[in-house]
Amino acid sequence: MHRSHLFAPTRREVAADLGSANAELLTRAGYIRTAAAGVPIYLPLGLRVLEKIARIVREEMDALGGQEVIMSALQPKELWEETGRWQKLGQNDVMYQFKDRSERETGLGMTHEEMAISLIRDAQPSYKDLPLAIYQIQKKFRDEARAKAGLLRGREFIMKDMYSFHVSEADLEAFYKQAISSYLKAYERIGLPVIATIASGGVFTENHSHEFQTITEVGEDTIYTCAKCNQAINDEIIANFPDGCPNCHAELKPERAIEVGNIFRFGTGYSEQMGLTYTTETGGREHVWMGSYGIGISRVMGTVVEVSHDERGIIWPRSIAPFDVHLLDFTKDGQGEKVAHQMKAAGLDVLLDDRPVSAGEKLAEADLFGIPYRAIISEKTAGQIELKARTAPDARVMLLTEVISTLKR
Amino acid sequence: MHRSHLFAPTRREVAADLGSANAELLTRAGYIRTAAAGVPIYLPLGLRVLEKIARIVREEMDALGGQEVIMSALQPKELWEETGRWQKLGQNDVMYQFKDRSERETGLGMTHEEMAISLIRDAQPSYKDLPLAIYQIQKKFRDEARAKAGLLRGREFIMKDMYSFHVSEADLEAFYKQAISSYLKAYERIGLPVIATIASGGVFTENHSHEFQTITEVGEDTIYTCAKCNQAINDEIIANFPDGCPNCHAELKPERAIEVGNIFRFGTGYSEQMGLTYTTETGGREHVWMGSYGIGISRVMGTVVEVSHDERGIIWPRSIAPFDVHLLDFTKDGQGEKVAHQMKAAGLDVLLDDRPVSAGEKLAEADLFGIPYRAIISEKTAGQIELKARTAPDARVMLLTEVISTLKR
Repeated sequence: MHRSHLFAPTRREVAADLGSANAELLTRAGYIRTAAAGVPIYLPLGLRVLEKIARIVREEMDALGGQEVIMSALQPKELWEETGRWQKLGQNDVMYQFKDRSERETGLGMTHEEMAISLIRDAQPSYKDLPLAIYQIQKKFRDEARAKAGLLRGREFIMKDMYSFHVSEADLEAFYKQAISSYLKAYERIGLPVIATIASGGVFTENHSHEFQTITEVGEDTIYTCAKCNQAINDEIIANFPDGCPNCHAELKPERAIEVGNIFRFGTGYSEQMGLTYTTETGGREHVWMGSYGIGISRVMGTVVEVSHDERGIIWPRSIAPFDVHLLDFTKDGQGEKVAHQMKAAGLDVLLDDRPVSAGEKLAEADLFGIPYRAIISEKTAGQIELKARTAPDARVMLLTEVISTLKR
Repeated sequence: MHRSHLFAPTRREVAADLGSANAELLTRAGYIRTAAAGVPIYLPLGLRVLEKIARIVREEMDALGGQEVIMSALQPKELWEETGRWQKLGQNDVMYQFKDRSERETGLGMTHEEMAISLIRDAQPSYKDLPLAIYQIQKKFRDEARAKAGLLRGREFIMKDMYSFHVSEADLEAFYKQAISSYLKAYERIGLPVIATIASGGVFTENHSHEFQTITEVGEDTIYTCAKCNQAINDEIIANFPDGCPNCHAELKPERAIEVGNIFRFGTGYSEQMGLTYTTETGGREHVWMGSYGIGISRVMGTVVEVSHDERGIIWPRSIAPFDVHLLDFTKDGQGEKVAHQMKAAGLDVLLDDRPVSAGEKLAEADLFGIPYRAIISEKTAGQIELKARTAPDARVMLLTEVISTLKR
């Protein structure tokens, strides 16, 4: 991709009230724009990052046995009345609800338990059809009073949500444990440090849920982390742990964190409310055991920026960077074209800055964009390339073949 | 993929009031479900088809120079007041509009001219930044009173919409012509016959727009096609062509058709309303020339089923089929596993029907699903495979290597 063709409108300054590093840097670097508070627009660079995060999550959900679907955003009221959540989420929480022109009460999906259950119920499953897990990656909507600029607290955001269905508590438990592993693997591949955090179980169960939290002082959640082992407790249930860490009894210390995922066991609670049963081996009918599993795809993108940037710009992990390498052409006769072509032929995704602007402007933009490697071709390096990792203090001059082998590692 | 694990809840019967082949067959075959009239849910098989259509369209838009973005579904009223379309689309047309809990007037995106223009305006383009084309593939919403089951007339549907920006009428014209070629190529790759149809120009211009129409007796549009050349005219402007076909003066005959895409030239109309200008080479400011280009991704899927099915089920074109081959295992000891493995190793996407159900049930489902090739392994073919194209009258028995070379063609 040529920088001269890329729609990435950068800004030197942004409004001071953006209030977060992710909003400021993603806006300045031309990754996102904001249609209204909490309503982001993804420009080409931003969409590339989002798609890479989604692909990793999709691969891990597929490996876990999940099957991808797309449920509807428009939600008929009748469905939500089966669980009593139409009123609850409309009044106390943040579901968009309105009447259409035929006076039908309609909502916008902020979660999809009711619809997922209705799909499985409609299929009249037998024990042979279970376990079954369906997931989707799409926009969700929350009529959020405290919406913020950036990607952390949105009215419109992108979620991966999965729903699993089982014949027994034991089967749900086994799947739930596998889901924790899949989640940790997904975040590790994305390059975002998280800690699995015990949280309250919610409406149907004494079983705890788990949140996946990224520790950062700008986080809105408080969690208590164990100094000795890899355990954390959400502050809403910390009172249940007077003896410290449940694993090793070491002291638990408060930290600020951003929640980037959460998983729940519902037992048979929803299935009882909505009449979701399966046919047993002996022809009887039993309620289905169920769990749900969320990852905030766009929130992950914002959180990565919060924890991975410096005063000059973003620092993307390689796996979700919009390009592998940012090639700055300082030559007068466009020698970068040939180098970019060879890098591309070697399987690298290259952003070539071919614009007739100053070296200083190109260098500043490379730091702002945060692509993992910056390569410079100039008359002064005599056909060699100056390569610098975004996180390294210094550059090294090397042959193109060496650059390629370094980047392919 | 094993059929025993695939969530594809088939139905023998569907409600008689579904009223269209695409609604009936996609529902019976477990590709889609319906949350409410015009609000589809894509199950795993349906999502596979949708993604393949989207990929072809994406490739053609990228080749045309389009850059992919994702704009917001939530639309602030203020933006639409700049063109006067808030009131127009809310009252006379079908835009969802409601107040959020902070009493802000909000709409759901049914088209994105205003938002696309605001993005480019905000970037303060110069002549060097143009031409520029941005596109997105995502859900759109219409508060459609005559919504139907299936994928042809939805409240919630998936569109590709592109917006192009130019320094001159000549540049817009050149891009518009290229877009017609790209569209014809995309439909050809998808396997959907379309005819480019001259339609009225709309609000800002005397220039005609073009619709891409698929001729079928279940279509809701009427177009007039030339018996001699590849030309068609939409019935809304047929009165302008009293002498027959504008190319060859042959007679124009009415046909029923489904509109699966449309493209418009706006001239500088929207740019004048919204103050979208670019800096010229001499430092002046001129209004930007603009076009927009839509393809109904989910409507294309429904239209393919309308024009490509028989009394037994769907007939997918190879390029958008959910799998390349549907392998039915009639053996008692699961010999299909090894065959499926070898097909997969050869790069084929295989659906293996490994269920302990009758041969008749498997054969009927293969016809219903409409995967382009059906392969059968049974004790009676002595290690060979019986291969039949969905559209062929008879099967042929051949070695696996021959099957693979036939399918890879």
